Amino acid sequence: MSFTDEQLPKDKVFRDPIHGQIIVDNQIILDLINTPEFQRLRRIKQLGTTSLTFHGAEHSRFGHCLGVYEITRRMCNRFQRNYPSLQSGDGLWDDRERPVALCAALLHDLGHGPYSHTFEHIFNTDHEKITRELITNPGTNVNRILKRVSPIFPEQVASVIDHTYQNPQVVQMISSQVDADRMDYLQRDSYYTGTNYGKFDLDRVLLMMRPIKSGIAFDISGMHAVEDYIISRLQMYLQIYFHPVSRSMEVILDHLLKRAKYIYQHPSDFQPDFTPYMLMPFFNNHFTLDDYLSLDDGVLTTYFNHWTHSQDKILSDLAQRFLNRRPFKSALYNKSSAKFIPKLTKLIQTVGYNSDYYTAVNDSFKLPYDTYHPQTSNPQTQIELIQPDGSLIELSQISTLVASVSGKEAGDQRFFFPKEMLAKHENIEIFEPIYTEFQSYIKNNELIDPKENN
Amino acid sequence: MSFTDEQLPKDKVFRDPIHGQIIVDNQIILDLINTPEFQRLRRIKQLGTTSLTFHGAEHSRFGHCLGVYEITRRMCNRFQRNYPSLQSGDGLWDDRERPVALCAALLHDLGHGPYSHTFEHIFNTDHEKITRELITNPGTNVNRILKRVSPIFPEQVASVIDHTYQNPQVVQMISSQVDADRMDYLQRDSYYTGTNYGKFDLDRVLLMMRPIKSGIAFDISGMHAVEDYIISRLQMYLQIYFHPVSRSMEVILDHLLKRAKYIYQHPSDFQPDFTPYMLMPFFNNHFTLDDYLSLDDGVLTTYFNHWTHSQDKILSDLAQRFLNRRPFKSALYNKSSAKFIPKLTKLIQTVGYNSDYYTAVNDSFKLPYDTYHPQTSNPQTQIELIQPDGSLIELSQISTLVASVSGKEAGDQRFFFPKEMLAKHENIEIFEPIYTEFQSYIKNNELIDPKENN
Amino acid sequence: MSFTDEQLPKDKVFRDPIHGQIIVDNQIILDLINTPEFQRLRRIKQLGTTSLTFHGAEHSRFGHCLGVYEITRRMCNRFQRNYPSLQSGDGLWDDRERPVALCAALLHDLGHGPYSHTFEHIFNTDHEKITRELITNPGTNVNRILKRVSPIFPEQVASVIDHTYQNPQVVQMISSQVDADRMDYLQRDSYYTGTNYGKFDLDRVLLMMRPIKSGIAFDISGMHAVEDYIISRLQMYLQIYFHPVSRSMEVILDHLLKRAKYIYQHPSDFQPDFTPYMLMPFFNNHFTLDDYLSLDDGVLTTYFNHWTHSQDKILSDLAQRFLNRRPFKSALYNKSSAKFIPKLTKLIQTVGYNSDYYTAVNDSFKLPYDTYHPQTSNPQTQIELIQPDGSLIELSQISTLVASVSGKEAGDQRFFFPKEMLAKHENIEIFEPIYTEFQSYIKNNELIDPKENN
Amino acid sequence: MSFTDEQLPKDKVFRDPIHGQIIVDNQIILDLINTPEFQRLRRIKQLGTTSLTFHGAEHSRFGHCLGVYEITRRMCNRFQRNYPSLQSGDGLWDDRERPVALCAALLHDLGHGPYSHTFEHIFNTDHEKITRELITNPGTNVNRILKRVSPIFPEQVASVIDHTYQNPQVVQMISSQVDADRMDYLQRDSYYTGTNYGKFDLDRVLLMMRPIKSGIAFDISGMHAVEDYIISRLQMYLQIYFHPVSRSMEVILDHLLKRAKYIYQHPSDFQPDFTPYMLMPFFNNHFTLDDYLSLDDGVLTTYFNHWTHSQDKILSDLAQRFLNRRPFKSALYNKSSAKFIPKLTKLIQTVGYNSDYYTAVNDSFKLPYDTYHPQTSNPQTQIELIQPDGSLIELSQISTLVASVSGKEAGDQRFFFPKEMLAKHENIEIFEPIYTEFQSYIKNNELIDPKENN
Repeated sequence: MSFTDEQLPKDKVFRDPIHGQIIVDNQIILDLINTPEFQRLRRIKQLGTTSLTFHGAEHSRFGHCLGVYEITRRMCNRFQRNYPSLQSGDGLWDDRERPVALCAALLHDLGHGPYSHTFEHIFNTDHEKITRELITNPGTNVNRILKRVSPIFPEQVASVIDHTYQNPQVVQMISSQVDADRMDYLQRDSYYTGTNYGKFDLDRVLLMMRPIKSGIAFDISGMHAVEDYIISRLQMYLQIYFHPVSRSMEVILDHLLKRAKYIYQHPSDFQPDFTPYMLMPFFNNHFTLDDYLSLDDGVLTTYFNHWTHSQDKILSDLAQRFLNRRPFKSALYNKSSAKFIPKLTKLIQTVGYNSDYYTAVNDSFKLPYDTYHPQTSNPQTQIELIQPDGSLIELSQISTLVASVSGKEAGDQRFFFPKEMLAKHENIEIFEPIYTEFQSYIKNNELIDPKENN
Repeated sequence: MSFTDEQLPKDKVFRDPIHGQIIVDNQIILDLINTPEFQRLRRIKQLGTTSLTFHGAEHSRFGHCLGVYEITRRMCNRFQRNYPSLQSGDGLWDDRERPVALCAALLHDLGHGPYSHTFEHIFNTDHEKITRELITNPGTNVNRILKRVSPIFPEQVASVIDHTYQNPQVVQMISSQVDADRMDYLQRDSYYTGTNYGKFDLDRVLLMMRPIKSGIAFDISGMHAVEDYIISRLQMYLQIYFHPVSRSMEVILDHLLKRAKYIYQHPSDFQPDFTPYMLMPFFNNHFTLDDYLSLDDGVLTTYFNHWTHSQDKILSDLAQRFLNRRPFKSALYNKSSAKFIPKLTKLIQTVGYNSDYYTAVNDSFKLPYDTYHPQTSNPQTQIELIQPDGSLIELSQISTLVASVSGKEAGDQRFFFPKEMLAKHENIEIFEPIYTEFQSYIKNNELIDPKENN
Repeated sequence: MSFTDEQLPKDKVFRDPIHGQIIVDNQIILDLINTPEFQRLRRIKQLGTTSLTFHGAEHSRFGHCLGVYEITRRMCNRFQRNYPSLQSGDGLWDDRERPVALCAALLHDLGHGPYSHTFEHIFNTDHEKITRELITNPGTNVNRILKRVSPIFPEQVASVIDHTYQNPQVVQMISSQVDADRMDYLQRDSYYTGTNYGKFDLDRVLLMMRPIKSGIAFDISGMHAVEDYIISRLQMYLQIYFHPVSRSMEVILDHLLKRAKYIYQHPSDFQPDFTPYMLMPFFNNHFTLDDYLSLDDGVLTTYFNHWTHSQDKILSDLAQRFLNRRPFKSALYNKSSAKFIPKLTKLIQTVGYNSDYYTAVNDSFKLPYDTYHPQTSNPQTQIELIQPDGSLIELSQISTLVASVSGKEAGDQRFFFPKEMLAKHENIEIFEPIYTEFQSYIKNNELIDPKENN
Repeated sequence: MSFTDEQLPKDKVFRDPIHGQIIVDNQIILDLINTPEFQRLRRIKQLGTTSLTFHGAEHSRFGHCLGVYEITRRMCNRFQRNYPSLQSGDGLWDDRERPVALCAALLHDLGHGPYSHTFEHIFNTDHEKITRELITNPGTNVNRILKRVSPIFPEQVASVIDHTYQNPQVVQMISSQVDADRMDYLQRDSYYTGTNYGKFDLDRVLLMMRPIKSGIAFDISGMHAVEDYIISRLQMYLQIYFHPVSRSMEVILDHLLKRAKYIYQHPSDFQPDFTPYMLMPFFNNHFTLDDYLSLDDGVLTTYFNHWTHSQDKILSDLAQRFLNRRPFKSALYNKSSAKFIPKLTKLIQTVGYNSDYYTAVNDSFKLPYDTYHPQTSNPQTQIELIQPDGSLIELSQISTLVASVSGKEAGDQRFFFPKEMLAKHENIEIFEPIYTEFQSYIKNNELIDPKENN
């Protein structure tokens, strides 16, 4: 039985705030959506701690995955209508690639767990490996369904997500400078945060896409639409994804999990108050796929809830800070002012905080931000425009706007510390001189040399 | 210290997808938002199982409560600008009512727990009583903050939510046919589901509101805007809130909690697999405010997750159906076809289902739908329009559209049953004749007399 | 050469605020758009005097015609993908009908002139006849282009617009309860007026459409979307199209044109100040197609501009009222209060107004409002829903909401008069008693019996 | 009688697609809107020939002027609520400036005529001078109304528009890098064209504005919102205002008016076919204010309509090209390729075109584009941000994004010529070699050296 044999007699439509309608016309896709593995994505927020800054953005990974599927479906439709391959190797679109493209799009984030970045940092998990495992392991529902297409189909789907699939058009649909993944999340996160920054003209970008031998390029008349997309992406990073309060809450989460792991790995030092069964495999560095699949945002916050009653003061305090949203404060620093951080850390210790758990430096450049760097690495991820005479030209060669921003790093470095360090005189006590000294290093939210601060 | 003494030097702004900006200009309001009691609302979905039908609608009660506050704030501003009371009893707006109005608006849903309607049904909790308790109990953070205004302020705020406060304008701001609560949730739920049904012209409705002695009325030139609001509300009920799939998932949730309660209350019959600490007080009908506050959506789904491994087949099956979204099917019935339900229930039992847990009748009229019934009960909750000469006229007297729909019940009655009962011949087995008989009672999603079904 | 031979190598896209992209993929369509006949629609406002009430709504018929084309194109695409005819007479969609459907959609309003309804009323023109003429007359550019498809093609296109074409699906695409024409203008007029009333879920309505033998029906799962469309349409009529100020400006326009015609037809009585060349054929009841095509909104207002300097006081006053937007006032009346109109008219004459030009009764029911009346006339224009078993059911049989409003007339009757009749005491003069008497007949914008007005 | 004495008892609300509600609460403002001078703006399109590229953008200057008023009103409200002046010279907002700010905002574009830029180019009119004249000339309705505030009020209003008013806050509200004028038109033109480029977070920008001694600055927490506004403005210029097709239609309009002027100024050479009375004063370089006020878009197109029948072939051809939208083609050129223009012009003459009327060079940099150039001229029009410690910092010092784009010119230079010069072989004739030579100079829409074109 092939993919096309499983065409549905009637489209199944998911109402979606971003795309209007997400249309499923194949039983394979519908069955994948209905697996426990995929339904679990409803219980994992797309943006983690960002919803603690932008309260509207509480959406889960479920909708995003459907959205990436839908954009990919529209790409396939358009390619098939306008650029159907007439003979092998002509660089046009071969619609037999549709099943692998759609399934890879739908499943590309399947391995994400709760608060992925932080969780992975503490527990050495890897959502990409788990995605691959969920697709290729014969024990999963997803694998069983994919094999209805062919025995090698799961491996093909996984290879698209790995970028090793042989057809570069399919790979670039899911993963490139202008892929279905980014196009969905920019629009979606913009909608849910209630900001306009991530909006761009999706219809026009899709209209201007064209399959070429080396992947996907854009008709030059779509230049402004692609430009707008690049700027939207940059603005979303600067204004939403790098927001200091979200990063502060992520620091707290990181330290909370680190503390919990320490306690449960050192039961002789501490008497853990109760057993967080679902986390134990991760504390013990030995977990199964089922252990991983049973995790979600609610499981973590349920344990955090228990920990607010812990006898370990650090654990209980950090759990409360996280659940009740009491972020650390932060100050910007740069190469030259970084030298003050040890001094500040010492002051923080002086007033009684364990600086392992109550300070952090965090560099938003480390976040997966892939601003457009034509000079680097991988030439096929450049954005290429097709000129009237058929020749290709790289976007920043022709767009003043993109040229202006490309190759320039964006983001910042911050030092995080308890808000209490900024206490004002009205509620001051014994540590007053320490606080005063600490505060002399900070001006207009930046670390400064107090000697120059008058 | 009074409310106005706590004016913030600079507005604190929450970015909101519905209202753009939610402006907090008072420390009391900000402190209330930052209480653990209020932050907990982030972990309770506004629409419960509706997000399983409309995947975009995963928003929490937190944003809604901020939204109700914001609409109330705008009402106060407008009233104060255009209709300030000049002397006591003139029926105009006395801005000294602003603090109680704002706090009541913000806190009106504070006592909601996870999946409120179902949870209350099974455990006899009452979110309105708990809201009152959270506001008036001296042990809560909320109470402590409210008392900064005055010792009787918490009681006043609670009385607004109870509808017993002496100023009818304030009560109607929070609770009436056209109140801040409904106006927020219609817009918000519409936005997050991605449907247009709940949209109406909020700015115009607010512009047309006027304080009168008996509460709030509308300038007659706002008639169409109010009309549109009434129709929007009706459509949201018919199309979103009464959606049969969401109700089906609620039936499953209800039966799952009922089963769990039964098991933990009859430990001799069943050996419960593990102790769900946070639910035990509710199984035992004896809970404290802290027990209640520790609950949220994540706690419930975490336990459901455990229960999928339960030895009790019903518990484990229902938990899986809920988590993996496998709704029951349903059929409409009416007075005349209701008589077939016992027969159908028997057929369902015959194939092996415990009908206590695998069937239900559900009447969407029971849901809190308050379509406009001028003929009933409470005259001050009618919508009154103010004519040019100052006289009042009730909305349905003048609006053909509202007259058409008012007084007519909307909604439906459904019988729920396992999807398996609709199994088609390809996967049929021993119970084939039972299935066939069952199916003869259903046509076009309605219960029918099989004798008339040819 | 056939229609498909003229497929464009690359889509031509018109950016449209309502539909995003309007896609033209055929040279015939592009050439039709580029004719002087079609470009002229840019100079004729879609909503006539409505822009004088809703200042945002200044859009022309050009965009609307493109929009109707685009919706029709999407219908064809969907039908062709999901319901392609397999053999003649199977009631499914035969894509060979696409050219005639697209051209009829694009050209259906081609014969509209400036301020059509009023212009036709005064000059006995008929935009439907002129549309037919522009399509079928061998002298037009449009005709020449259409004949590239086939010699009989112009006649076929015209017959779709006449409702006499043999394929009912094509006819209903352009003209039925839920046709591309209405679906475009509701959305478009809503967008430009800045109101939300006309919005409905176009994508969903299109998704639910299905060709049947007798025309077009809707899948029952689209019931709510169709319901919402019906209500939107009703609200747009009540709130936008029937707005009393727009109707008042239409009354002034009507009287202004009537006066001008009278003057130019009676040159002995009046010495017309100058010759309005482009209107003379219409004053003389003898015009050619070229005369008609040279008219547009700007031509009329240019003459009005001249007429503000006319020696005829009525002509000059009405021209100023129109250009400078000084509407008449109006009062509602009903069967019983209609009897006061002669008396009021006399009072208006008493203060010196020629009542032929300074009063009017206007009944908005006369406007082309086709609310849903299943009981009347043409059964195939009913909205039929397709049930799961394939049977049809008429919409109001199953929709409580549509049943509530269907068959009920909406609209009102108004008596129009100069605003000066409502003069208040501060600027009163010799006619004070007349004004006072006049005003005693009016209360809350309605005609009343002054004896009952205390 | 002062401005505040004319407060309306009830707000008058204009429904606006951009701002929702435009609120007029003063009789002066209402009377200004109702003057013939202001109503005339309904007959002048905001974007001139741009509607021939973006068909949705047919909106007039009327709505824009209301919008600028509304934004200014909101600025005043916010300033008055948050930053009211306590004593003269404290750099805060003195609400006695409100009347002059509102009136200047409303009237700032009053002197615009039809297709302003082109009309002014040909007839040496100046809309800014005429605006001043309309405000200060005792013969106008506008002047009469303004004088109700005070005898010197008209002069004060005019001085705000001239930038000579003594209060820099008021001047910068109407005219600065981030003023009400630009903020309205970016949003409005974006809405009507149906593009997203011009959208930015108006509410947030307004929230962040603060009066300072030297004018208006922004709270630093609004940095991203201002950044987004700057980028939006840049994108609107590049993508909408500089669109080559609109500029091409403007070239045709320019040449058409130039030809008409030539003909009517040289009646001996040509026998003009008829007298365009309303344009004659402009052909004769001697016009009154009334002559100017009688012009609008419709007057021009009415004359163009007449001219399509002219015996002067150039006049009639250009009139047809304009009315029927047949733009010239264009090619980009730069300093180095500019040298080919004389040669190309000669080729165009060779095939029979008068190059005075059938070619043009057009440099979009000449358009009133004021990208952010901190290094130039006027320091107070820089955008200044207010840091937490109260000090000011110029935007590009802190915004990477603005720094990237600031100081870089955007736009292009184009050579315009008849589309016929690009004729392809299928319709070629005697001039085939000329066409071929011409085309060898153009590649990918740019002028090139044909020797390098292989």
